[in-house]
Amino acid sequence: MYLYSKNIYFPNQIKREGYLKIEEGVITGFVTNIGSESFEDYENYLIIPGFIDQHLHGWGTGSFGNDKTHHGLLEMKKHLPSVGVTSFLATSGAEPIEDLIQGIKTSCEIMETQKDDGASLLGVHLEGPFVSPKQKGMMREEFFRDPSVSLMETFVETQTVPNAIKLMTMAPELPGSKEVIKFCKANGIQINIGHSHATFEEIANLKEYGLGGVTHMFSGMRGFHHRELGVAGTALFFDDLYCEFAKQTGMTVKPEAFQIAYRLKGPDRIIMTTDNTAMAQLTQERYHYIRKQTFIPDGDWFVIRNDDGSEQRYDRTDYEQVKHLELSYIESIQNLIKNVHPSVHDVIKMTSENCAKYLNVYDRKGSIEVGKDADLLIIDEDFNIHATYCMGKKY
Amino acid sequence: MYLYSKNIYFPNQIKREGYLKIEEGVITGFVTNIGSESFEDYENYLIIPGFIDQHLHGWGTGSFGNDKTHHGLLEMKKHLPSVGVTSFLATSGAEPIEDLIQGIKTSCEIMETQKDDGASLLGVHLEGPFVSPKQKGMMREEFFRDPSVSLMETFVETQTVPNAIKLMTMAPELPGSKEVIKFCKANGIQINIGHSHATFEEIANLKEYGLGGVTHMFSGMRGFHHRELGVAGTALFFDDLYCEFAKQTGMTVKPEAFQIAYRLKGPDRIIMTTDNTAMAQLTQERYHYIRKQTFIPDGDWFVIRNDDGSEQRYDRTDYEQVKHLELSYIESIQNLIKNVHPSVHDVIKMTSENCAKYLNVYDRKGSIEVGKDADLLIIDEDFNIHATYCMGKKY
Repeated sequence: MYLYSKNIYFPNQIKREGYLKIEEGVITGFVTNIGSESFEDYENYLIIPGFIDQHLHGWGTGSFGNDKTHHGLLEMKKHLPSVGVTSFLATSGAEPIEDLIQGIKTSCEIMETQKDDGASLLGVHLEGPFVSPKQKGMMREEFFRDPSVSLMETFVETQTVPNAIKLMTMAPELPGSKEVIKFCKANGIQINIGHSHATFEEIANLKEYGLGGVTHMFSGMRGFHHRELGVAGTALFFDDLYCEFAKQTGMTVKPEAFQIAYRLKGPDRIIMTTDNTAMAQLTQERYHYIRKQTFIPDGDWFVIRNDDGSEQRYDRTDYEQVKHLELSYIESIQNLIKNVHPSVHDVIKMTSENCAKYLNVYDRKGSIEVGKDADLLIIDEDFNIHATYCMGKKY
Repeated sequence: MYLYSKNIYFPNQIKREGYLKIEEGVITGFVTNIGSESFEDYENYLIIPGFIDQHLHGWGTGSFGNDKTHHGLLEMKKHLPSVGVTSFLATSGAEPIEDLIQGIKTSCEIMETQKDDGASLLGVHLEGPFVSPKQKGMMREEFFRDPSVSLMETFVETQTVPNAIKLMTMAPELPGSKEVIKFCKANGIQINIGHSHATFEEIANLKEYGLGGVTHMFSGMRGFHHRELGVAGTALFFDDLYCEFAKQTGMTVKPEAFQIAYRLKGPDRIIMTTDNTAMAQLTQERYHYIRKQTFIPDGDWFVIRNDDGSEQRYDRTDYEQVKHLELSYIESIQNLIKNVHPSVHDVIKMTSENCAKYLNVYDRKGSIEVGKDADLLIIDEDFNIHATYCMGKKY
């Protein structure tokens, strides 16, 4: 199969007027002449690498957070390509230990059997349970635990796919964290600081053992202060720490605050995610303190009750009805572009390349290069998605 | 008079192996050959512009804050050259209106009669009285006032030297501030935001009328938060706002916080000051909440009582005894250099050039150029002061 475009974004260069050759889901060449062979014509579109979302609990009709059967992840894989995501990490929160173990098992089963169906499941992101009650955000404190190497061993032993657990979010100020950080480093698990009240000193002392970044920058962390930099200030200070940003709604992080972080960290150290949850798949009523809404599951229906008493009802099994309940990955990127006007290559870094490097999958994801998976977005100049390819399959 | 050096710091260039010619307090030339004329030999020293301190209430044996007679300012003028300061603003705090008026009168008298004796008094910085009780810091709330154009008119009419009032620190969120800002703009008075609880929106809405910078960045202001940037975040966000930093003790602003601001603002938008007070000249007992010490005036003596009960006593009239009670301008710059490793030219921007431009005296201060006042520091490579020239006079 050949894809033609005038704008194919290889690393550090734009290939003009040529054909990407794709065979068995992999990019096998870039050629400027294919004779009389047929091709998909994307002449005036841009071809960029698909987005990688390392932090999402669910999307639309699929919730890994609330459903540890295959169903949740399969729904996510099915619908994520429509919002630009071609690979992702199944992200758990602070949950009962047996649910976390089941989540790792289920993720490994999906990774073994469904590799080329929809978005690629790259592995697992454990957001907790080693997080701080002082920065719980929307997390359920009853499932928080102090860092434990034996529990980490249990998680790692549960994997039936090597290195399925790719990332963990933890609070490094908790007792026992140093041993857990070292264990993760030895087992290929990146550590993000998140839901953490750590000080600059606490982070600086542990950083060398394997702290690589921060989770949903500015949220769930001690904020920046000029006498105590906190997690936020420390993330801004150390050039090498990755700042993961949740979706850019403008609500949780003001665009100007994002811009300040962008100027300091640069496109090489920002990783865009959504932290989406598939709201409509909630199993328990919850109040969202920033949106000022109560989310109520009601059989096949999902109800949003606003603080003024008004309600909206949605069929939770209908993707078209629920897909607008949260800002999608592509919508978040469109907002990002409005705020900081990055180059297309800088967008690629923040949405794909940095994350692939951080998760150690840059050998097959994160850029358009010969030999890599054909995870591609066909977009117009305003970043509207025209088509998505996951492992060479068009969605 | 000629000064010889291998390193004379003109704007954007270092003049090598030449002679600065100084006549009647003014730099009148740079020449490479003076025949057999005599000269001061600073061969291996650096010659840079003298420091300008736009924010100091007192120094050593002289307190403008507590003494509105000539004595306070004359003592400051006499001793400031030894710490590198060749010109400064007499800075008042929130004080009784009659004291503020007397301060303006006294400053004008000094400016009229003592121009070439010691450090140059450039004018007045009114830190208050239009400041916010929510960010009072060490200021005395009983003297805070809402912004008033008629009071500003009184201040301006008090001037016997045109444009003696060069800078005012105010809280723009207070009622009536817009008219005062416009009045100041029309009268050549720069406005710093300080002791202010203003939001991003409040500042953004008033900025165009004449807000030029912030006073002692990070202190006395609403701190940076990702949903409300506050004065600190707003100062980091807008490229054109000057950030004035008080002396770099490392106590009030951590070096890492300073570095974050430095990376964002750059050397072109930072103005170093001391905010020194001539502690030993206090007239009333005060407790310093950061130093955890009580300062007690006792006749000609000044007593510091630590929280543990121990005391130190100083003869308040003896400069050698009291000069170490506060970090000096040059010591603050030595700390700054340790923290961010700026070039000498960047240090000059932050200590002299930016301030001279901001206060509209760059036609005669703030750089080494032919036609400008001979306010010079002779320093070694570690920024130790070897000699100071104020208007061509050596100190």
